[in-house]
Amino acid sequence: MRWSKTMIPTMKEIPSDAEIPSHQLMLRAGLVRQVMAGAYAYLPLGLRSLKKAEAIIREEMNRADAVELQLSALTPIDIWEKTGRREAFGDVLIQFEVRRGDRKVQMVLGPTHEEIITNIMAHYIKSYRQLPITVYQIQTKFRNEERPRFGVLRTSEFLMKDAYSFSATVEQLDAIYDSMYSAYCRIFARCGLKYLPVEAESGPIGGDASHEFMVPAQNGEDQIVHCEGCGYAANLERADTGRTASSQGQPSNTNKMEKVSTPDATTIAEVSKLLGIPAEKMIKTLIYEIDGKPTAVLVRGDHEANESKIKRALNADLVELANDETVKKVTNAPTGFAGPVGIDCDLIADHDVAKIVDAVTGANEKDAHYTGVNVGRDYQLGNTYDLRMADADDPCPKCNQPLKLVHGIEVGHVFKLGTKYTEALNADFLDEKEKRHPIIMGCYGIGVNRIIASLAETSHDENGLIWPLAIAPYSVLLIPLNIKDEEVMKVAENLYDELQEAGVDVLLDDRKDRPGAKFKDADLIGIPLRVVIGGKGLKEGKLEFKWRTDESPSKVDVGAGFDTVMLELNQRKEEDAELIPDV
Amino acid sequence: MRWSKTMIPTMKEIPSDAEIPSHQLMLRAGLVRQVMAGAYAYLPLGLRSLKKAEAIIREEMNRADAVELQLSALTPIDIWEKTGRREAFGDVLIQFEVRRGDRKVQMVLGPTHEEIITNIMAHYIKSYRQLPITVYQIQTKFRNEERPRFGVLRTSEFLMKDAYSFSATVEQLDAIYDSMYSAYCRIFARCGLKYLPVEAESGPIGGDASHEFMVPAQNGEDQIVHCEGCGYAANLERADTGRTASSQGQPSNTNKMEKVSTPDATTIAEVSKLLGIPAEKMIKTLIYEIDGKPTAVLVRGDHEANESKIKRALNADLVELANDETVKKVTNAPTGFAGPVGIDCDLIADHDVAKIVDAVTGANEKDAHYTGVNVGRDYQLGNTYDLRMADADDPCPKCNQPLKLVHGIEVGHVFKLGTKYTEALNADFLDEKEKRHPIIMGCYGIGVNRIIASLAETSHDENGLIWPLAIAPYSVLLIPLNIKDEEVMKVAENLYDELQEAGVDVLLDDRKDRPGAKFKDADLIGIPLRVVIGGKGLKEGKLEFKWRTDESPSKVDVGAGFDTVMLELNQRKEEDAELIPDV
Repeated sequence: MRWSKTMIPTMKEIPSDAEIPSHQLMLRAGLVRQVMAGAYAYLPLGLRSLKKAEAIIREEMNRADAVELQLSALTPIDIWEKTGRREAFGDVLIQFEVRRGDRKVQMVLGPTHEEIITNIMAHYIKSYRQLPITVYQIQTKFRNEERPRFGVLRTSEFLMKDAYSFSATVEQLDAIYDSMYSAYCRIFARCGLKYLPVEAESGPIGGDASHEFMVPAQNGEDQIVHCEGCGYAANLERADTGRTASSQGQPSNTNKMEKVSTPDATTIAEVSKLLGIPAEKMIKTLIYEIDGKPTAVLVRGDHEANESKIKRALNADLVELANDETVKKVTNAPTGFAGPVGIDCDLIADHDVAKIVDAVTGANEKDAHYTGVNVGRDYQLGNTYDLRMADADDPCPKCNQPLKLVHGIEVGHVFKLGTKYTEALNADFLDEKEKRHPIIMGCYGIGVNRIIASLAETSHDENGLIWPLAIAPYSVLLIPLNIKDEEVMKVAENLYDELQEAGVDVLLDDRKDRPGAKFKDADLIGIPLRVVIGGKGLKEGKLEFKWRTDESPSKVDVGAGFDTVMLELNQRKEEDAELIPDV
Repeated sequence: MRWSKTMIPTMKEIPSDAEIPSHQLMLRAGLVRQVMAGAYAYLPLGLRSLKKAEAIIREEMNRADAVELQLSALTPIDIWEKTGRREAFGDVLIQFEVRRGDRKVQMVLGPTHEEIITNIMAHYIKSYRQLPITVYQIQTKFRNEERPRFGVLRTSEFLMKDAYSFSATVEQLDAIYDSMYSAYCRIFARCGLKYLPVEAESGPIGGDASHEFMVPAQNGEDQIVHCEGCGYAANLERADTGRTASSQGQPSNTNKMEKVSTPDATTIAEVSKLLGIPAEKMIKTLIYEIDGKPTAVLVRGDHEANESKIKRALNADLVELANDETVKKVTNAPTGFAGPVGIDCDLIADHDVAKIVDAVTGANEKDAHYTGVNVGRDYQLGNTYDLRMADADDPCPKCNQPLKLVHGIEVGHVFKLGTKYTEALNADFLDEKEKRHPIIMGCYGIGVNRIIASLAETSHDENGLIWPLAIAPYSVLLIPLNIKDEEVMKVAENLYDELQEAGVDVLLDDRKDRPGAKFKDADLIGIPLRVVIGGKGLKEGKLEFKWRTDESPSKVDVGAGFDTVMLELNQRKEEDAELIPDV
């Protein structure tokens, strides 16, 4: 492609409304342009990268025996009601009414397609003989984002690869899950991403039912708990810690327990401020209904309780915060003054609670707290558990080394769904004994735009983008220094033709701009291999080669130009291929 | 691909809600499935064909120097208000409101993208040096169809290739228009369609500003006027006829003009019924405001006036039906009783009007008509014109042979837009003298789904679809007659592997069904080349080859199987290539 024939609106200035590097660079390099808040146009360079990511995804999904199809974006409202997701999605779901003659029809723009594909499979699958099957699509999804931001990272319209597997047995599901997991590793590696598969919430199937694929990035909106020692990684919701129970014997030199007046102070922050006590010296007492039974959950004042962990600790099905009435019943006080001393329900505590000496906690009485509260003396605890969100420097649950808390961008998610949708939508199969069962599902998503954005976010320098070869809009950029010089243009056009002929994605900067401006743009758009034609070099019969990441160019004989490009590209491809897991 | 690994839900029965062959066959062959009225899922076979059409379009657009980008489906409402198309589209425009924090945001799902691309170009284009440029996208569009029907032919969600050209001069526009026209001819020819480019309405640029690409088909919703003699083709709105003015001398034996009472009879049908006079003996007198001046337009009672023709006949800018007040002013009567005799405004008539002897027409008086009206005696006419829709057997405007009226499916449209959008959205450029002008646009659309549907509609027999090689979901279908026979499967798997290796799109029917069922499905899904492995043939060391259109199979040595497939496919490709215009 000739630069003059395409559309690459590069910008010198950093757009004022772009907060993070990927957003700034994608705008500045002319990859995208905002159409409205939350919706972007992909300009030619951006679209080329997006299509390359799409092609890699397609190849790997096909390789993993998933079959491509394409569902519609328009979907009927009733199917979302059947599965309860109209309510669950809330304002995220884009719904509207259209006029059809004298009827009005209510529609939803698909934010994801579990319902639609399950409904199609309900009609298609009759027998276990047709299972397992995995289908996928690469399709535009719509989700109203209350606060669209960070360029194409968080938008209301985005391109998603969504796959759905349908199995007769959990073993079939497990096998597909593993093969999708492997395909994802290959996809992200081929796209040149430094990614981390992290454990995510466990699903109805139990066990390791869900992994998110994260790209560690300072501006990522997700938090990952990661052990650099053993490689353990989980999202914040899911991450275990290696913390253990400590002895609950009373230390010496404890204070006496005293009741203090704390009028209207119902939060940790308010009590902490009122009494001048740091939050980590306080016990947060949360009253939950756990499988219907009121239970007090204790965590340190500066910690957050994690409901999934409470669920697992008690092997419970349903964990929800109790209402004010229940709180009143077990604490004899309004919400905000609960504490372990004299409370009328079961107690369960995080490991760290037992370590607090002279704690402050609610007195189970309106407008009152206790100070100098100590376990074993003032209240009793059985086993303690890991009930809070993991934190930096907590010990790793696998190897006890200190955990790190890093930010990441979620680019993929694999999930063992179970039978939630197939039960709601009657998608059954007959087994070998003609017995009917709901089909067992898995779902597997990739945010295609986020592949591009997270590359931009993590692979750039102060001058611009640094594309990996596989995703770069063009592999090679030819820069003739002076397009009015016939000799320069003859060499440039020749090389351009040869590379085109050989199927290389090559961009020829045929603009009449000065070399400085061309070099700046070259760095900004980040094409991997740059070849400069002209100037003193050409007079000496040389071309200048430079990879985007090289410090300085190297010289090559004009006659060897084509062969050198091919050799360099092939070498780089081989190097990149070594990073792809062979699974 | 193995049949057992993909999803091809063929049906024996004709679905009761599918009226036309393409809809029936696309459902029965498992290409598509309805998600809701007006929205379809493409199942694996259908999607493969759709993707092949998409790839051909992309190749030809690139070849014609158009640059691909991708706009968003979500668009802001205000831009549609600026160009007046919010109102013009009416209920077709899918609009809705979403909540963003405490604001509500009004959005439109793009039915087409003139506004969005023009707005982007308004920011990008500064100088004539950047022009011309043509951009395109292949993207899902949304238009509320009041009556979605005919399967994927008329839906609310569809895949469109839309291209937009931006030029500094009309000459540039003309050149791009011609190259798009040629690209369209190549695209439809490569897709194996029998298409007809037909003249469509002339636009603001004048001349032949618009062509539709039609696939003649009995169930097509559009009407085309076509001359088999010279090839002239135009849509019904645009079609000229070769009719000429006849002499306006009074024939002998005419009746006397008489006024008759026609209470409340204001339409041709009512007067015709009341007086027992056929419509072709009546003069329909329509009062128009033509560039603000009231003018009576006369056509025969059974004919329809064509406003574009009126416009061209009078070289007018604005032609609209007059309101009741104006009618009253020029006819002294309410609407429904206008006639040429004694009317108080200019008259203009279609050629056929002057031929009516003893015509019936309004008397310019409430509840009254005249009978026995003759031109030259009772009213005067200047030149007569071609002012009505063309009809079958009218003479061709080019060669005078009788015209035919045929139905067609519109698959593409090229249009010289002019400056409508660039003026409304301030998309200007500076010329060589630094003078500002609005950019001159063209737009060029293809309905991608309609390529598939019109192939299904026009290329099938009683047993099923007949795909052209270029669009067929698979080129070759291998049918092993008995999958439990090891020898059969060895030969089949071998050939399958060899063809896969050679990059041939091959489908292996590895189902354990009986041969009869497999043959029926083979005909239904219409894969071009079928190879049968097994039975008596295989015992004799032979495979059976059959093109979908062959009467009966031919036998080939097992050892020559692979070479024969490759030879047959290459021959067919060469034959098909001969039909592609080399432009």
